[in-house]
Amino acid sequence: MTPVIDLNADLGESFGAWVLGDDDAMLEVVTSANVACGFHAGDATTLRRTVARAAERGVVVGAQVGYHDLAGFGRRRIDVAPEDLTADVLYQLGALEAMCRVTGTRVRYVKPHGALYTTVAVDEAQAAAVVAAVAAYDRSLPLLGLPGSALLAAAAAEGLPTVAEAFADRGYDADGRLVSRREPGALVTDPAEVADRVVRMVRERRVTAVDGTDVTIAADSVCVHGDTPGAVAVATAVRDALAHAGVGLRPFAGP
Amino acid sequence: MTPVIDLNADLGESFGAWVLGDDDAMLEVVTSANVACGFHAGDATTLRRTVARAAERGVVVGAQVGYHDLAGFGRRRIDVAPEDLTADVLYQLGALEAMCRVTGTRVRYVKPHGALYTTVAVDEAQAAAVVAAVAAYDRSLPLLGLPGSALLAAAAAEGLPTVAEAFADRGYDADGRLVSRREPGALVTDPAEVADRVVRMVRERRVTAVDGTDVTIAADSVCVHGDTPGAVAVATAVRDALAHAGVGLRPFAGP
Amino acid sequence: MTPVIDLNADLGESFGAWVLGDDDAMLEVVTSANVACGFHAGDATTLRRTVARAAERGVVVGAQVGYHDLAGFGRRRIDVAPEDLTADVLYQLGALEAMCRVTGTRVRYVKPHGALYTTVAVDEAQAAAVVAAVAAYDRSLPLLGLPGSALLAAAAAEGLPTVAEAFADRGYDADGRLVSRREPGALVTDPAEVADRVVRMVRERRVTAVDGTDVTIAADSVCVHGDTPGAVAVATAVRDALAHAGVGLRPFAGP
Amino acid sequence: MTPVIDLNADLGESFGAWVLGDDDAMLEVVTSANVACGFHAGDATTLRRTVARAAERGVVVGAQVGYHDLAGFGRRRIDVAPEDLTADVLYQLGALEAMCRVTGTRVRYVKPHGALYTTVAVDEAQAAAVVAAVAAYDRSLPLLGLPGSALLAAAAAEGLPTVAEAFADRGYDADGRLVSRREPGALVTDPAEVADRVVRMVRERRVTAVDGTDVTIAADSVCVHGDTPGAVAVATAVRDALAHAGVGLRPFAGP
Repeated sequence: MTPVIDLNADLGESFGAWVLGDDDAMLEVVTSANVACGFHAGDATTLRRTVARAAERGVVVGAQVGYHDLAGFGRRRIDVAPEDLTADVLYQLGALEAMCRVTGTRVRYVKPHGALYTTVAVDEAQAAAVVAAVAAYDRSLPLLGLPGSALLAAAAAEGLPTVAEAFADRGYDADGRLVSRREPGALVTDPAEVADRVVRMVRERRVTAVDGTDVTIAADSVCVHGDTPGAVAVATAVRDALAHAGVGLRPFAGP
Repeated sequence: MTPVIDLNADLGESFGAWVLGDDDAMLEVVTSANVACGFHAGDATTLRRTVARAAERGVVVGAQVGYHDLAGFGRRRIDVAPEDLTADVLYQLGALEAMCRVTGTRVRYVKPHGALYTTVAVDEAQAAAVVAAVAAYDRSLPLLGLPGSALLAAAAAEGLPTVAEAFADRGYDADGRLVSRREPGALVTDPAEVADRVVRMVRERRVTAVDGTDVTIAADSVCVHGDTPGAVAVATAVRDALAHAGVGLRPFAGP
Repeated sequence: MTPVIDLNADLGESFGAWVLGDDDAMLEVVTSANVACGFHAGDATTLRRTVARAAERGVVVGAQVGYHDLAGFGRRRIDVAPEDLTADVLYQLGALEAMCRVTGTRVRYVKPHGALYTTVAVDEAQAAAVVAAVAAYDRSLPLLGLPGSALLAAAAAEGLPTVAEAFADRGYDADGRLVSRREPGALVTDPAEVADRVVRMVRERRVTAVDGTDVTIAADSVCVHGDTPGAVAVATAVRDALAHAGVGLRPFAGP
Repeated sequence: MTPVIDLNADLGESFGAWVLGDDDAMLEVVTSANVACGFHAGDATTLRRTVARAAERGVVVGAQVGYHDLAGFGRRRIDVAPEDLTADVLYQLGALEAMCRVTGTRVRYVKPHGALYTTVAVDEAQAAAVVAAVAAYDRSLPLLGLPGSALLAAAAAEGLPTVAEAFADRGYDADGRLVSRREPGALVTDPAEVADRVVRMVRERRVTAVDGTDVTIAADSVCVHGDTPGAVAVATAVRDALAHAGVGLRPFAGP
């Protein structure tokens, strides 16, 4: 049986005159697009174009919801009240859904962005607030997040589908956790090495940790980045290596 | 046969710590709520609450779309490119729709706000951009606007439903146009006089112009205001006078 | 010798169409105006008007700097990087200074607002970032804050003047700390009681804590609120009681 | 006598995670930096860094004031009320001044950006509003703008210094006006041709119009662009050609 995996990336993060990433190139690589929803990035025209291009290429669209903080690009934790966070997630979900609706597709999953992603990995109140929004909006929408996170736990407790992701270019420690960006080994930058790691994650469900030991990794989707020219090259190398290794690419959330 | 009319008002225009208008009082008056969508007013939590309260009272929800300008409250014309305006309207429609969806209702019409309202009354490019958004989103959604406006003409040409509105407290000239706010007679402030005018608009399809002549007025909805305590009193007087005159209140867009 | 005290309040917190507080009434009460700087509240026109009115009445202007978060009114802690917080404070200081310059006055002190106020009371990195901005901008500007706070400690260590404030309408515990808003006794609402407490704070340097004991309080300025009609009445009662008790009102930062 | 000219460019237009232009490269080319002030572009940290780098290289700093419209990058005309525009310009001037103050320099001129630039070229009310801000703030600050514009006329009438600029890479018509961007000949893209034109503008005070005739041009500063890699190459070619032609570079506003 052919092993399959999903590749996801953050797209639609340009804003007005400011361009971020090469979305067209990344849409040739990934099977799932985490499209920004305007709160941390992504003006309305960018969202509409990104969703239209994703739909044309058969790439599944997910809502990349974030904190309301353009100046901080959603990378600063905000102590937003749970009720407000739930409403903010609903607002973003609906805004992106309108773009999907006019291009014949729909929002098929939800992935928090930046500081919201790292916060809902551990903060139960904010995790519950995000889950409450998705549960109220569409109980069939999966949440894409970190294995073992408060977010996926809250989603599972609420009966929502969950999808665990691994990171193509991040280092892992011996307990299977991401190495902090402030520590050595946090990032793997060599395209060939990243590609090999992803193939192994998929075929063997293992990755080599920073201390050299092997750790088990159970991911339904692998996150790649596309915000720099180098990142696009790495993502392309991952895609090519998976094809070469006989791994199929398939979105986790289907039409 | 009992004559009927719809009463509409702008609601959901608070933002964060700033409260504007007495939405609860106005929801007892109107049959249609033009709910702000976050671009000129209305944070996500306010939108959600406003939609929920409207739904509880059986008040129909419309999307009050505006320019992206919180500091100007959407009251300053912006020369936004048509493509961007279309995307901005879609974004706002979707955001409000999400709030409707989680409260068991839906967006049932669209009304531009403030400077966008006055601009699309005459500017064909911006009018077409708003209509393009609604046509792409849901061809059954009526546009609520000024009789004779570029907006309603563009909507009709596109095959979308249109709804003409009159203003309870605004003066009309002998040609049936609104008197400019910079000229005398622009505003009628006495509650009893406003109420009498609205009853006559509905029963006789006529209103007394500033020059004393009678002009014909053909409106499916009458706009009342609620942004000051005095305005709420006027709106309430209108509602009471209509009831007293045997005029029924019925939303133009129904479930 | 006549005892003297400064009364300060948050002003200039309207934004565009949204009005907050009765600034004109409060300018008759206070000797120091903490004027918002546009990041959490206060559009440019509001800032200019508020500063002009304060200058006319001889009320001293301070910069009420906050997080960049209109939707949250600066009441949500944001994990902003120290370098960015320093730049944000400089930006706000300069913006308000321009308004002062064109009305013949100047910014004479700095007081953090909302969540930034409570954060810099305990967070040394953010406190140092605020102090760094003031030290770079004008080493003669005092920081107004909570006695014992990280902010005042950092300012003192940097050699900047500090001014300790007490709160007219907040409860204190037996250790002289503010009672949390989530606990009973956090707020004193009776105007006469608030006025009596402030008179005693000034004349005896003591206040009755929630447990009935007396605690010492050493404040150079007392903060009153004006964001509701009731709050204005309390503030006015405080001013009247101080006058009646022979306490002089004098700004801590002078021309 | 050696002819001299000033070269100016828009800098400091990055925002949060979004980078625009190569400011370091352009600071090696220009003598005057039009630094964004946060309303159309430029977060506080970007402003501070840009001003610091300009100061290090002896590049003069001007305030590039714009409409309050990040999503539109200040490129959309907004019908802002004159009183509000004056306050917005003051706010931006002061914010940038604070960054100058902490790096030992100061704001030395004002240049409107984008749609505000083209609006104040013809709109007397908005031109007067910008001039009113500068006149209130510092009567010694020159306004940099289009020769024959409403802005420079209003500034001159108010007694403020004015500086006329030419555009290195824009086509001119036989009357010395800029060719609209919607018409052929609006942009000159060949670096050598642009450089030749600028040398001739400075040495002969003439440029070849799109119809082949020569027109007189009287500019104290020439605007170059740096928002694309190609633009930086053009700007560098201009600087080199001026040096080769024996033209000195000198800021029009000096310490």
